[in-house]
Amino acid sequence: MAGTRGRFITFEGGEGTGKSTQSKRLAAALQARGLDVVLTREPGGSPAAETIRGLLLSGRAKPLGVLGEAYLFAAARIDHVAELIEPALDRGAFVICDRFADSSRVYQGTAGGLPADVVDELVDAAIGFTIPDLTIVIDVPVSVGLARVGHRSEGADRFESDAVAVHEERRRGFLALADRFPDRCVVIDGSREKDVVSAEILNLVLDRFGPFGEGARGD
Amino acid sequence: MAGTRGRFITFEGGEGTGKSTQSKRLAAALQARGLDVVLTREPGGSPAAETIRGLLLSGRAKPLGVLGEAYLFAAARIDHVAELIEPALDRGAFVICDRFADSSRVYQGTAGGLPADVVDELVDAAIGFTIPDLTIVIDVPVSVGLARVGHRSEGADRFESDAVAVHEERRRGFLALADRFPDRCVVIDGSREKDVVSAEILNLVLDRFGPFGEGARGD
Repeated sequence: MAGTRGRFITFEGGEGTGKSTQSKRLAAALQARGLDVVLTREPGGSPAAETIRGLLLSGRAKPLGVLGEAYLFAAARIDHVAELIEPALDRGAFVICDRFADSSRVYQGTAGGLPADVVDELVDAAIGFTIPDLTIVIDVPVSVGLARVGHRSEGADRFESDAVAVHEERRRGFLALADRFPDRCVVIDGSREKDVVSAEILNLVLDRFGPFGEGARGD
Repeated sequence: MAGTRGRFITFEGGEGTGKSTQSKRLAAALQARGLDVVLTREPGGSPAAETIRGLLLSGRAKPLGVLGEAYLFAAARIDHVAELIEPALDRGAFVICDRFADSSRVYQGTAGGLPADVVDELVDAAIGFTIPDLTIVIDVPVSVGLARVGHRSEGADRFESDAVAVHEERRRGFLALADRFPDRCVVIDGSREKDVVSAEILNLVLDRFGPFGEGARGD
């Protein structure tokens, strides 16, 4: 397997869609099949990026406006890609990332008011050729997502506390991205039982990149 | 002295002007007079800001362009002001900072090509009311500054390695800022002997904020 580039799988969607749970489950299922798996998240994922995540989620960067936030996400992403994602893909690992560039497109673009070409330019500058092989867009009605977030103990962060209309706009934004990038995006109905959703995601990954028996991966 | 707000002194100027040396010497001289002194620097000065400094000086953020750099400096400054500068001023300390917002005005504005109003807006968003009481602009001919930097062992960073014409533009930029903010800016000829320069700076600070004998500071 040496010399084979890994696979880059991202999870996208609004608040309370189950991205974190499902990305963890997929990572565990692939690890159980003996694969080298790196599970990471954005914002964050490397020490410098986690620091910037802290600034962003605290709301302290809010005086810089949505363009400032977009630049901070981009800077964090540059570090995350260079420090963690690319080295893992280079050694042949599966990298599973809970949110990635599509979240910038939706949060700062569609729903944040930045022109799409500005966000696209920032995303391109930040990720270069590190484009996901598969993006799983988990879709749930906003009322379901927000009810789930409401059950969390930690309290709402800067992005969870926005108005319902904004959450609706983000949901539409993620679905529009799936239309825009049909080769890599698959929309999954996340309103069903967790086990049903994770089985569907695992099947999708096995179909696309598997099988992973002994020596089964021949690419 | 309780309840008296401290004093905020910044050092500005191009590469090799002696800002770091002179800010350290001023801090030591004020400490020797029994004052509470906090010596800090930009970019950096707090843990999150130091992390962003690392990203900036490594050149890794360069794909984000000069506007991206300006936003990163602003984000770092927000953290620096909130975490270190304001708490120190609140308790009555002298805060001495090696570079501050004027460096953004010159590096990203005058010499970086960003419109002055864009940089001013970012600076205002980042610092709010935390405006220096005194800004010491150390001025040396570019050839002198670059020769000094050339003698450093660490090698040139992202900003030192720019062309001579850019350094000339920055020098003019700092002198223009001193004209624009005459109440807080004083230009010091940094091409003279270090001891002469530091004596002049200390006298300036004593004149403006002193004397600091026992109970001398009555404001």
